Amino acid sequence: MSAPTGKPGRRPTIKEVAAAAGVSTAAVSQAFNDKGRLAETTRRRILDTAVELGWSPSASAAALRSARTRTLALVVRRPTDVLGADPHFSELITGIEGELAPRGYGLLLHLVAGAQEENALYKRLVAEGRVDGAVLTDARADDPRPALLARLGLPAVLLGPPDRSASVPRVGLRHQGAAVEEVVRHLVGLGHRRIAYVAGPADLQHTRLRGGVFETALKEAGLRPYAVLHTDFTEVSAVAATRALLDTADRATAIVYANDSMAMCGVGAARRAGLRIPEDLSVVGHDNLPLGRWLHPRLTTVDQQVQRVGAAAARLLLARCGEDVEETVLEDRPRLVVRESTGPAPA
Amino acid sequence: MSAPTGKPGRRPTIKEVAAAAGVSTAAVSQAFNDKGRLAETTRRRILDTAVELGWSPSASAAALRSARTRTLALVVRRPTDVLGADPHFSELITGIEGELAPRGYGLLLHLVAGAQEENALYKRLVAEGRVDGAVLTDARADDPRPALLARLGLPAVLLGPPDRSASVPRVGLRHQGAAVEEVVRHLVGLGHRRIAYVAGPADLQHTRLRGGVFETALKEAGLRPYAVLHTDFTEVSAVAATRALLDTADRATAIVYANDSMAMCGVGAARRAGLRIPEDLSVVGHDNLPLGRWLHPRLTTVDQQVQRVGAAAARLLLARCGEDVEETVLEDRPRLVVRESTGPAPA
Repeated sequence: MSAPTGKPGRRPTIKEVAAAAGVSTAAVSQAFNDKGRLAETTRRRILDTAVELGWSPSASAAALRSARTRTLALVVRRPTDVLGADPHFSELITGIEGELAPRGYGLLLHLVAGAQEENALYKRLVAEGRVDGAVLTDARADDPRPALLARLGLPAVLLGPPDRSASVPRVGLRHQGAAVEEVVRHLVGLGHRRIAYVAGPADLQHTRLRGGVFETALKEAGLRPYAVLHTDFTEVSAVAATRALLDTADRATAIVYANDSMAMCGVGAARRAGLRIPEDLSVVGHDNLPLGRWLHPRLTTVDQQVQRVGAAAARLLLARCGEDVEETVLEDRPRLVVRESTGPAPA
Repeated sequence: MSAPTGKPGRRPTIKEVAAAAGVSTAAVSQAFNDKGRLAETTRRRILDTAVELGWSPSASAAALRSARTRTLALVVRRPTDVLGADPHFSELITGIEGELAPRGYGLLLHLVAGAQEENALYKRLVAEGRVDGAVLTDARADDPRPALLARLGLPAVLLGPPDRSASVPRVGLRHQGAAVEEVVRHLVGLGHRRIAYVAGPADLQHTRLRGGVFETALKEAGLRPYAVLHTDFTEVSAVAATRALLDTADRATAIVYANDSMAMCGVGAARRAGLRIPEDLSVVGHDNLPLGRWLHPRLTTVDQQVQRVGAAAARLLLARCGEDVEETVLEDRPRLVVRESTGPAPA
């Protein structure tokens, strides 16, 4: 970014366009904004005239007319290949878009490699007036983003379990841990003693939270985790983790995966190793993706209502951006959906 | 959109911010843009001073400094729930983001309900200077978008098979039909005579193209389609179509699906009906999603290189927006990836 160097060259004015097209300046605005009741032939004539004269409503003029960009940012700190691998994000985006699309809002998606890049991006988006607000993902311990965004004056919401002390409102299901307890109780109740957890990256807050609850819940049943393996959410790492858990004589009899796509890979890897699901191995996912309901066996999973959370985050952010939208109160906690991929522990 | 009404109120200037923070105006710019070699303490002091004085580099000032928004639009004409159901889009977005993210570009995602809304959106984005270019999806017969975008002066690329006569450059694999021919030859070679096709919505250009090739290829083998069923790409419609194809005495022995997630649902529905894959039913998908490689049986599919096409479209558009990016030439055609879900027709 450099300071302005001199004035821009002579540009045609909206009045000149209006005169050349034989309409009012208001009609020129309407033609570009697709509002008003212009006949299509009139609209086309105005647009053609504007193009001929080299006139367009510039961003600066538009900015004077309205400070609203009708754009919300979603910044994701993930390698690009994980975006494709983890359907969690398309579920989230679907939930957000469900609220944005009917209101004519767009979602500005940015992928960043690290914290520094993410923070620099928020500064640029604010400096250039690109967005009205931001949805933050992946709550982290000692998260510097809420303070930064408050300083920049950008409305924001953070996806994560509600926390009244947080400086940026959080949107997520309460009692995230409760579902993991429910999973452990379900598996222990089925007689499983060797229960493993294929988790996400170690530095994510929800990975730590769930991992802690997993251990505590097993402890209450007098058990220890068979293993907790961290992955980068990719299919390859899910398959490798599954093989590691099954490649011994006293193999795991139940595996809990941090998302459904890893669980589906796990089912494939186990069946390839000659194991039946659920007779020889019980499998639990997280996310309740539509696909899981249709596989054979149908996937037992934790419904985290990712789409609903995305929608609630979008609604809260829209309200904070001045839109007339009622907030959704998410009272529900994640719940275990028992289907066919879990069963009694093998004898 | 209304015309500007009066001048904005007195605002602090960048010079005043620079003076109050004890730095140059260039340093103020750098602090907001996160460029240059400012110490973090200096940067913070500048940002805090700017917030105190109520100064921010406005969108209008930013527009004067640079016409670049570093934002490309992707407008998708789909119900929001299909975005989540069809991993095709997360693959596409992943491919685009792979090129955008390293260059600091964002992707502005808009979901629209219909053609009129899509066209109005392009006009607004251009009018307000929100994007540098647009990636168009779902080439349609008599597509009015290329002419509109040319008139608006917005750089664009259209995802679809290359066509030299098109007014907007198209990015896609050549010989889309060749892979469908290959699928049919593969299945006929395995002895299948009752081959069905579970297609996408009838009004999409690629649905028609593939459907035509499917029929022609079967005709060359002296066969007719067992059935061609159209769906809205959702899991539910894939399961319903599969059941319809299997619920008769002379059921289909091979089903080709328009995408992998529908094929995976089809495998589940078939196994639930007591059929073995591929002994009783052969299944072919489209897209070559990562998950398909890890299921059991591994999915035979058509690799359409969705990520690569997305990346190539992004590169071409970046080049048209003035970025120094070499175009990728996509020479490859879609290819059949034979895995485990296809086998000899049942006797």
